[in-house]
Amino acid sequence: MIILGIDPGYAIIGYGVVKYENYKFIPLEYGAVTTPAKIDFSSRLEMIFKGITSIIEKHNPDALAIEKLFFNTNTTTAIDVAQARGVIMLAAKMKNLPAYEYTPLQVKQSVTGYGRAQKAQVMEMTRQMLSLKSVPKPDDTADALALTICHGYNATMLGKLNFGR
Amino acid sequence: MIILGIDPGYAIIGYGVVKYENYKFIPLEYGAVTTPAKIDFSSRLEMIFKGITSIIEKHNPDALAIEKLFFNTNTTTAIDVAQARGVIMLAAKMKNLPAYEYTPLQVKQSVTGYGRAQKAQVMEMTRQMLSLKSVPKPDDTADALALTICHGYNATMLGKLNFGR
Repeated sequence: MIILGIDPGYAIIGYGVVKYENYKFIPLEYGAVTTPAKIDFSSRLEMIFKGITSIIEKHNPDALAIEKLFFNTNTTTAIDVAQARGVIMLAAKMKNLPAYEYTPLQVKQSVTGYGRAQKAQVMEMTRQMLSLKSVPKPDDTADALALTICHGYNATMLGKLNFGR
Repeated sequence: MIILGIDPGYAIIGYGVVKYENYKFIPLEYGAVTTPAKIDFSSRLEMIFKGITSIIEKHNPDALAIEKLFFNTNTTTAIDVAQARGVIMLAAKMKNLPAYEYTPLQVKQSVTGYGRAQKAQVMEMTRQMLSLKSVPKPDDTADALALTICHGYNATMLGKLNFGR
């Protein structure tokens, strides 16, 4: 099963593509789609849509694991993150890629076994499970990779491995 | 100049297409794109994207007038409205349709000349200015038509009429 993890945003959209096979995670590609602040917001949405579509076309993943949004901070930022997330969800849907949403708590629990784990612990566990030399930068990319692990475990538990490779 | 007004949402997306010529507003088409609650959210986003794209293709408007979002209510609903709005902005961008954002206050002021006007007054003024027999239903459609009037006036003031028909 190939899993695409995405940490939604509008300036930096972290992503990770991971193959999950025989209970092992193999990173295929990871990085971030970035959009410049100086262009209008609609153009940024278009860049995000095209960037995510191209990643999906390249790897043909079986599932999208994406963070569920909660608003408790700056609302203007929150609105823009949600608008960008809508575009990411649309890109997945238009490629028939099923989306699975996870809360930050679910990600922490899946990766470290502990819902109150520190961010640094989650990142270090993610690094180890993917056999990476260092924690990927930016943090958005590491978060996206953690989401792939979260989905790998959850899909296994739910017997969802049946649907894919 | 042909103006597309959209009142963003994910269940009911009101729209109005209006021709603004010689200081007169002529309604060309108005209604609502609706999505059923029983399908998954990604499918609703896709319906919205396709519905708005098809309206743009049909009328080839010069401008999109869309309501600016503020969050002060239910945050789950707000996140979903923002996600849908991102998809609407993307649909416009991909058809090279420039988007103009207006706050509810700007719409009230433009249509009634009074920022604290009641919703019913805004709707009645919209009805009169478009020479309609009754206020369009649902409210989302009436709101979308009010947005086209708001943009018509603002574009005129800003000399933006130069760019179109």
